[in-house]
Amino acid sequence: MKKEISIGLLGLGVVGSGVIKIVEDHQEDLQHQLGCGVKVEKVLVRDMEKARKIAVDETLLTTNSADVLDNPNIDVIIEVMGGVDTAREYILTALKAKKHVVTANKDLIALHGPELEETARENGCDLFYEASVGGGIPLLRPLSDGLVSDRINQVMGIINGTTNYILTKMDKEGQSYEDALQKAQELGFAESDPTADVEGLDAARKMVILARLSFFTDVELDDVEVSGISTLALEDIEYGNKLNLTMKLIGFANRHDNKIEVSVQPTFLSKDHPLASVNDEFNAVYVSGEQVGETMFYGPGAGSLPTATAVMSDVVATIKNMLLGVNGKKFVKTRFEKQLAPAEERFGQFYLRLRVKDETGAFASISDLFNKLGISFERILQTPVDKGAAEIVVVTHKTSLANFQNAMEQLKDLHVIETVESSYRVEGDA
Amino acid sequence: MKKEISIGLLGLGVVGSGVIKIVEDHQEDLQHQLGCGVKVEKVLVRDMEKARKIAVDETLLTTNSADVLDNPNIDVIIEVMGGVDTAREYILTALKAKKHVVTANKDLIALHGPELEETARENGCDLFYEASVGGGIPLLRPLSDGLVSDRINQVMGIINGTTNYILTKMDKEGQSYEDALQKAQELGFAESDPTADVEGLDAARKMVILARLSFFTDVELDDVEVSGISTLALEDIEYGNKLNLTMKLIGFANRHDNKIEVSVQPTFLSKDHPLASVNDEFNAVYVSGEQVGETMFYGPGAGSLPTATAVMSDVVATIKNMLLGVNGKKFVKTRFEKQLAPAEERFGQFYLRLRVKDETGAFASISDLFNKLGISFERILQTPVDKGAAEIVVVTHKTSLANFQNAMEQLKDLHVIETVESSYRVEGDA
Repeated sequence: MKKEISIGLLGLGVVGSGVIKIVEDHQEDLQHQLGCGVKVEKVLVRDMEKARKIAVDETLLTTNSADVLDNPNIDVIIEVMGGVDTAREYILTALKAKKHVVTANKDLIALHGPELEETARENGCDLFYEASVGGGIPLLRPLSDGLVSDRINQVMGIINGTTNYILTKMDKEGQSYEDALQKAQELGFAESDPTADVEGLDAARKMVILARLSFFTDVELDDVEVSGISTLALEDIEYGNKLNLTMKLIGFANRHDNKIEVSVQPTFLSKDHPLASVNDEFNAVYVSGEQVGETMFYGPGAGSLPTATAVMSDVVATIKNMLLGVNGKKFVKTRFEKQLAPAEERFGQFYLRLRVKDETGAFASISDLFNKLGISFERILQTPVDKGAAEIVVVTHKTSLANFQNAMEQLKDLHVIETVESSYRVEGDA
Repeated sequence: MKKEISIGLLGLGVVGSGVIKIVEDHQEDLQHQLGCGVKVEKVLVRDMEKARKIAVDETLLTTNSADVLDNPNIDVIIEVMGGVDTAREYILTALKAKKHVVTANKDLIALHGPELEETARENGCDLFYEASVGGGIPLLRPLSDGLVSDRINQVMGIINGTTNYILTKMDKEGQSYEDALQKAQELGFAESDPTADVEGLDAARKMVILARLSFFTDVELDDVEVSGISTLALEDIEYGNKLNLTMKLIGFANRHDNKIEVSVQPTFLSKDHPLASVNDEFNAVYVSGEQVGETMFYGPGAGSLPTATAVMSDVVATIKNMLLGVNGKKFVKTRFEKQLAPAEERFGQFYLRLRVKDETGAFASISDLFNKLGISFERILQTPVDKGAAEIVVVTHKTSLANFQNAMEQLKDLHVIETVESSYRVEGDA
């Protein structure tokens, strides 16, 4: 048995620095867990001269990827450089050189997970990515192992800290979207170009990974319906509060009769839902299984040390597998043909805000239209807004998405409707 | 490789029935995960004639423990019979016969865990007990593996569904303790003799297990300071609500400078604390790690299928280890000498309710006493209750338990105090 396992690090940003710190600070713990030491052998960086937050032995640094990928001393590669194409190429090279790989790269796994997993298996290597979803929260392994004998029917995730921070500020402090975004940027919770976060793309990538693990089928990014929070009006959040609903950006992975839906959308949650009280930059993933019922995993979705903790749990799992000689067993295998649920087979409750002419029979004509389609209302809120107009907010009982979309289409022809202001999904005993 | 792994079941109650159901319903999933079938070979029951909730092939049942424990076909024993002495004896027999053991028995693990683990190790067998804490919540494995490179400093758990149900009813619906307990008994959330639950003993046993796993030290049941909820007054819960505090029965495992505290006590949580919104019979365990920050695991703490799901996750882990030939690596090894933190080194905030004479200077004399001890107040609430008396509720700033106990002692001599009605620990930015 080796006395020391050597790691090669690709990238020395926020997460990479965290990994270096943990390996240093927890050397004794790691030795105890593994019976051998863990050592960072080489670190690929873009710029040797760049000022760094942590002190790193300069002889470890290199700008030449071959110093890491072709290094015969290195057993495990940690990819924390981000991006897709180069990271993919490096990881493929590493796996083919029989090096195990741990990555925190959700974009890469969402786009090229199946190819990379296949390459790992062919080469008898581990490929782990616990940190790719939910940062420091132990999540993918509990989902696969802890619920191994269960059948998961729904995963709902608050898996983007930026948008959750913004929505919390809007909801709790009445800030506008723009103000909350700016505050998030000042605090480092949002990037200067926040598109990937606020438009739901980051969450969509994570949902691809969660849906694959939960449903054993090859979900791709294109299968995910995505809408973000950038057009969200504070008025809707305020109406939601009156209706005991909290707005969250939710990633859904639902299975019904082996047909699946994967989506990311702003969603009104009942305030009693366990996800409704997940605030600020925190993440949480709610899982509903046939046997276990409901369970939830909560914690920091990002950050240097939390994410590095998840990376290191993968490194320890890999090293344990090395010591046991059992690498190359992957988290999950594809078992089912993918079948996406059509709108006719996707059921839910919906929130709808309409601006209507304030005239006799206005609400009755709307109510008639829904009634004919078999959609009934659970809650109704009507408020006069200005001369001659009123705002009507309704929450429907459960109906199919197709039926609701049909109603939305027919609403346009109703003369009492001035505008359809917004509509959102509603979850959890509204 | 075996085509089928055979299981022996000790006990066919709530959890045992769930195991039988999962093995039947998920045979295909298990085959896929393991590459081999799983079969229940024999079931030890107390009474062959007893009416059962599920249909079980009668030829599987036996009242003779040797039919299970000495059965050469059986590879894995699942102990779900409960109780301590007989269960211990059976498990020791099974381990010595080189059979792996999965148990949901918290009482047994809390009392005899180290002995059983040692026996398992000596015989190269697995001994897993994921279901012993938090029922269906994947918890012990994520705690050990997911946070493997972290240093856990605090575990706070709502790990008794009965008391959480009672406290939720008191808090949300203003029910008295007696009414809420009766309701819990009617719903099957509380036993006819509820002592072990309401006095905190059940939670204490689970905390022993969590503390051992978190701190790598041999915590014993006697090390746990326990107080329950049976003397809790509705008035305190109502005062708590006014102070933005929610009452929960919390199990604490705290580490500070390698000195630990393990306790179970009614505790006021800030309503912003992630545990504060864990309601009804649900369980949740909040973990604070040096690197990960705060994370929480939430779900059903009991129930036939949830608990059986956790049992089966252990069975699958055991079988995987069998297939890999790597059984007998335990969750956790003892590494540190146990040092219990004295009251002088245990810090917290405290809630205190006093009945005082309604006379000039009453509050000043109390305030003086605390001030002399260096204890300041964060919140104060004074209410006249009846002629000549008032109730004063204070929440202190952080101070040592010893200091607070000292203040409580000195209060008795203060002539303005009629009675010290209650005092509780306060957690989380009150």
